[in-house]
Amino acid sequence: MDGAPPPPSPAGLSAYVAVSQLLGLALLATTGAWLGRYRGGVAWHSPLQFNAHPLCMVLAMVFLQGDGIIAVFESHRTKGIPDMYSLHSWCGMATFVLYLLQWFLGCGFFLFPGASFSLRGSYKPQHIFFGITLFILSITSCLLGITEMLLFKISDSYSHFVPEGILANTLGVLLVAFGLVVGYVLTREEWKRPPLAEELALSMDFKTLTEGESPGGGSQ
Amino acid sequence: MDGAPPPPSPAGLSAYVAVSQLLGLALLATTGAWLGRYRGGVAWHSPLQFNAHPLCMVLAMVFLQGDGIIAVFESHRTKGIPDMYSLHSWCGMATFVLYLLQWFLGCGFFLFPGASFSLRGSYKPQHIFFGITLFILSITSCLLGITEMLLFKISDSYSHFVPEGILANTLGVLLVAFGLVVGYVLTREEWKRPPLAEELALSMDFKTLTEGESPGGGSQ
Repeated sequence: MDGAPPPPSPAGLSAYVAVSQLLGLALLATTGAWLGRYRGGVAWHSPLQFNAHPLCMVLAMVFLQGDGIIAVFESHRTKGIPDMYSLHSWCGMATFVLYLLQWFLGCGFFLFPGASFSLRGSYKPQHIFFGITLFILSITSCLLGITEMLLFKISDSYSHFVPEGILANTLGVLLVAFGLVVGYVLTREEWKRPPLAEELALSMDFKTLTEGESPGGGSQ
Repeated sequence: MDGAPPPPSPAGLSAYVAVSQLLGLALLATTGAWLGRYRGGVAWHSPLQFNAHPLCMVLAMVFLQGDGIIAVFESHRTKGIPDMYSLHSWCGMATFVLYLLQWFLGCGFFLFPGASFSLRGSYKPQHIFFGITLFILSITSCLLGITEMLLFKISDSYSHFVPEGILANTLGVLLVAFGLVVGYVLTREEWKRPPLAEELALSMDFKTLTEGESPGGGSQ
């Protein structure tokens, strides 16, 4: 409260963020190499539609995960494969549904003016925890998907250390390394952005006006 | 610095710890049910030796992980299956090796008197981060192992929602839930144990005597 917090040391943080971005690019490139070189590439209205699923799911760490989910269901329907029977599908769907929930709760608590500041303050650590948890669950779902695909496609040769198996395993290791570096950056106390002066002033003013009270509607 | 921190609220913490222990017992029981009911049980010098691997690996969250690693290599040798080709084996071995590293670094920094207090202070957050990371990696390796085992054993019937598949998927979901609750308990600021009075006094005294200096030997 007495004085603004000191500015964070940007040197170490920048290096870690750079490594995380390089790892992110490397895993996108490895995914592309695997699908392009061994699995015939990616196309939407074709037998290659399934391949849009891993590609979109990895891209989704940067962009969206919706397209990847649609691709797998359409591909299953075309080929007569049942949906949602595997552990990968259960974990992937749980991640997707919990992401939606996180998004709706985030909107409800932080975007709409109905939530009191004390309520926002008590929800914020949960939102941060579940954000990191969902990121980890996304990576775990990718690892399960890699294992599934290898055992569906190359179960006879996987144990002979064929190049496709090693490439896909390497993708898995890159995913873990990516998660590790991003997780490290996210959880360092000294790298947390201190609140800006105008944010502090604004929240203080509103806090005084509405302490423990919702300025908006009822319980709904 | 001014006054001891307030005692943490034990009510909420106790409930979460209780839930984590119940989940832990539930996942041990589910592992036992799967191996006992569908996979013929567990025995060491027999074709069932492989089954000691998942059982020991899940038990290892409470006890040790060494036996589980030995079981899979001996089982592979007996059956002529190559080692270390799958993503599950890579993740599992990485977890095991990193656990050993964490253990040695932990001993080096905290048990032996050679490390300075400033060095200990700067290593402690890394030790905590990697402890949680290894716990998550353990669970991820279990999920990959479940998927592998199902696709090796029941690849023909898995997509028909057979009971074994659903039971094993449920075990995977329990592992995720267990990790979630334990991860939540571990990362709550307000549930961190404050330093005891004697620990504070002791470290202060030593800190004054050895500030930034190692009381012990050289760089080795």
